Amino acid sequence: MIQKQTRPILTVGSMAFDSVRTPSGKADNVLGGSANYFSLAASFFTQTKLIAVVGEDFPKDHLKFLSEKGIDISGVQVVKGKTFHWAGEYDGNMNEAKTLTTALNVFEHFDPKLPVTHVECPVVFLANIDPVLQQNVLDQMKHHELVALDSMNFWIMSKLDELKKTLKRVDIICINEKEAFLLTEEKSLEKAVKKIQAMGPSNVVVKRGEYGSALFTPTGAFLAPAFLVDEVVDPTGAGDSFAGAFIGYLAENGATRSMIKSDPAGWDQLIRRAVIHGTVMASFTIQDFSIGRLKTLKKEELMHRKERLMKMISVG
Amino acid sequence: MIQKQTRPILTVGSMAFDSVRTPSGKADNVLGGSANYFSLAASFFTQTKLIAVVGEDFPKDHLKFLSEKGIDISGVQVVKGKTFHWAGEYDGNMNEAKTLTTALNVFEHFDPKLPVTHVECPVVFLANIDPVLQQNVLDQMKHHELVALDSMNFWIMSKLDELKKTLKRVDIICINEKEAFLLTEEKSLEKAVKKIQAMGPSNVVVKRGEYGSALFTPTGAFLAPAFLVDEVVDPTGAGDSFAGAFIGYLAENGATRSMIKSDPAGWDQLIRRAVIHGTVMASFTIQDFSIGRLKTLKKEELMHRKERLMKMISVG
Repeated sequence: MIQKQTRPILTVGSMAFDSVRTPSGKADNVLGGSANYFSLAASFFTQTKLIAVVGEDFPKDHLKFLSEKGIDISGVQVVKGKTFHWAGEYDGNMNEAKTLTTALNVFEHFDPKLPVTHVECPVVFLANIDPVLQQNVLDQMKHHELVALDSMNFWIMSKLDELKKTLKRVDIICINEKEAFLLTEEKSLEKAVKKIQAMGPSNVVVKRGEYGSALFTPTGAFLAPAFLVDEVVDPTGAGDSFAGAFIGYLAENGATRSMIKSDPAGWDQLIRRAVIHGTVMASFTIQDFSIGRLKTLKKEELMHRKERLMKMISVG
Repeated sequence: MIQKQTRPILTVGSMAFDSVRTPSGKADNVLGGSANYFSLAASFFTQTKLIAVVGEDFPKDHLKFLSEKGIDISGVQVVKGKTFHWAGEYDGNMNEAKTLTTALNVFEHFDPKLPVTHVECPVVFLANIDPVLQQNVLDQMKHHELVALDSMNFWIMSKLDELKKTLKRVDIICINEKEAFLLTEEKSLEKAVKKIQAMGPSNVVVKRGEYGSALFTPTGAFLAPAFLVDEVVDPTGAGDSFAGAFIGYLAENGATRSMIKSDPAGWDQLIRRAVIHGTVMASFTIQDFSIGRLKTLKKEELMHRKERLMKMISVG
C-alpha cells in the first residue's frame, strides 16, 4: 500500500554556467548544473530545498524564477567570485559528453551548510559532487527517510574510498552504465548491480542514455526504454532532470526507506512508476539547450507524454 | 481479432561455417548462416521450408537435425564445392561484428529454385542476401500473405536500387539502427522509420543490439528492451534468431498482410507479442557460440524467460 503523503526533498549539487556544443548547434554560458536541473524537474512533484553555491555573476532573475517554482532557495550561498563553469561537447555519441574545460571557481571551496529549517528534510538527493561533501550534508541531517545519490567516473577514480563510505548511507543510486562497470570492475550489468547493492543502495538505476534505463530493486529488474524524440538537441542535464522527476515522484507519493522492506511489492511498483516519470522528464530536457524546455514545460504536457510512453512500452 | 491458423514459412538465406572471436573466446568453423539461425528459431512455432545452398563439406548430420526439428530441407541444394565461410570478431562493441574474411564459395552462384511444393507458402522471410535473389524468390511465389525481409549495410551501399525494388513488395523489415540511418540518410529514428515505411514495409523492426528493439507499425511504436543476460558469449545470429521467433510467432498465429489494414489494433497487439518472442529467442542465442544454445533450448525455457521479460517491462 502506498501512503500518499507528499514530502519535500533536500538536494545538494552544482549551479553552473555551461558552454555546450552538439551536432544541433551550440550554447554559450547558459544555465546548467546538476542541482539546477534536478530542482526544476522535481518542482513538478514536490518542493525542493536547494543547497548550492553561486558567484556574484549568477543571475538573480533565475533564483527568483526557481523560487516562483516553489523551490526553497534559502540554502543557496551567493559568494564573491565567479560561478562554476563547464564546457563540453557531444559528437557522434550523444550518450557521453566530452569535457573541454572545467572552471570550479566558487565551487572549489563549497562548504554546504544546512539552514536549521533544512536539517529534518525527509528525502535527500545528493547530486554528483565530491563524496566528502555528500557525507558532510548527511552528517548535518536528522531523521531522513530516504537518501538517493548520483556520482560519476571522476569520483570513482579519484575518491573511491570516500564514495564507498557515502554509498553505505544511501538507499538509491543513479549511475551511468559505464560508471557502474567502472565502479565494480564488472562487465555484466547484473553482476555490477549486485556488487553495487552490496555496497549499500538496495535500489540501483542504471542510466543508458538514449536507450533508457534499467532499475534494480530488491524485488527484481525493470527495463525502461527512453521516449523517442525527433531530435536530441543537447543531452546535458538528462540524468539530473531524470533524477529530479524520479525522486520528485517518490517524494510526492510518500516513499520512505522503511517501505522497501515492509512493503517490497508496493515499493517496487512505486519506484517503477517513478522511473517512468524520470524517463519522460529527461526526454523533454534533451529537446533544447540548457533548461530551455524545462522552463516552458507544463504538467499536462508531461502527463500526456507519460501516457504515450506507457503505450509504447505496453505489450497490449 | 486474431485468427489462429498456423502457417508455414518459406525462408531463403545463407547456411555457413563461421569463425568467430569474442571477448568470451573463439569458435572456428562452427555452424552459422542466417537461414540456419532463422529456421531453428522458427521451429519452436511453425514449420519452415528452407531454401539455401551448401557445399559437399556441409555436415549431413546437421541437415538431419534440422529435419528432425520439423524444418523442410527439400529446398536445400547440396552442390560441388565448399560451403560459405564467414570470419568475424567483436571487440568492445558487442552490437557490431567486424568482418575479417568472407569466402562466398558455393554461395557465389546461388540461384534459389523453389520446389513446386514451396511456391504457395503463405509466409515468406527473405534473410539478408542479395536483393536480386530476394526478388527472384518472390517472383517464383504465388499467393503469399505476408513477406518479411532483413538486409544490411553491404546491400544498402552496393545495390540500393534493387533493395528499394524488393522493399516495395515487403510488409515487414528487420534492420539494424545504423543501417536504418544509412538507408534513409536520416539521423532521427522516427524520421528514418517514416522514410522506410514510405519505401514499402508498413512495419519496421529496428534492432538495437543489447538495448533491444523498436517496432513501428501503422498504429504506433513499441519499445522492447533486450532481456538481460549475464554474459554475451557471441552475438552472432542474434538478429536472425530474433527474426525466426518473431516471424515464427506471427505465422503460428495466422498473421496475414490483410490483417494489417482490416484489424490494425489486433495486428498491433499480435506483432508486439511477436517482438517479445524474438527478443527472448535472441537472448538465448547470444549465450553460446554458434547455434549451441538453440540446439538444447526447450520450449518451456523459452516461455519461462518470456514470462520473466514480461515482468521486467511491466510498469505494474
